[in-house]
Amino acid sequence: MSRLFGAMATLIEVFREHAGKDGDASTLSKSEVKSLLTKEFGAKLDSAKDKGAVDEMFKALDANADGTVDFTEFVTMVAALTVMMQGS
Amino acid sequence: MSRLFGAMATLIEVFREHAGKDGDASTLSKSEVKSLLTKEFGAKLDSAKDKGAVDEMFKALDANADGTVDFTEFVTMVAALTVMMQGS
Repeated sequence: MSRLFGAMATLIEVFREHAGKDGDASTLSKSEVKSLLTKEFGAKLDSAKDKGAVDEMFKALDANADGTVDFTEFVTMVAALTVMMQGS
Repeated sequence: MSRLFGAMATLIEVFREHAGKDGDASTLSKSEVKSLLTKEFGAKLDSAKDKGAVDEMFKALDANADGTVDFTEFVTMVAALTVMMQGS
């Protein structure tokens, strides 16, 4: 499997792992977003433990404001973070 | 490094590896897009060798039509392909 394909598969794996924890396995609830942020970015993202910041992040992620974060919204966040990372 | 962070770093690595081949190292030329598609998706993307398909792909990627594909345009493509992969 190519590196790029592997990276794409990882995005799907990480999303499914957290989305499957409660309720609808195709979307992330707020608590699932918090557990994902803490596990995947905890060390780099102090705000992952700060409730207000998670609420803000969740609102920003939940583009269609339906109270959940679907895969497209998740990948859009990862893409935006990656562009910021590349630029820094 | 978390899996997600590793995947994001891979997107940057793959882009930089191909973008650095000729001219401006911060953008992908058409030939660099072709070499990236062939190397990373060759087996899965027969069209990577088909000139017409690469032209079409390049036009679709080059959102601002400046004749090159920058990192944001590249990540947008990867995000779109990942959403398609997740949905299939």
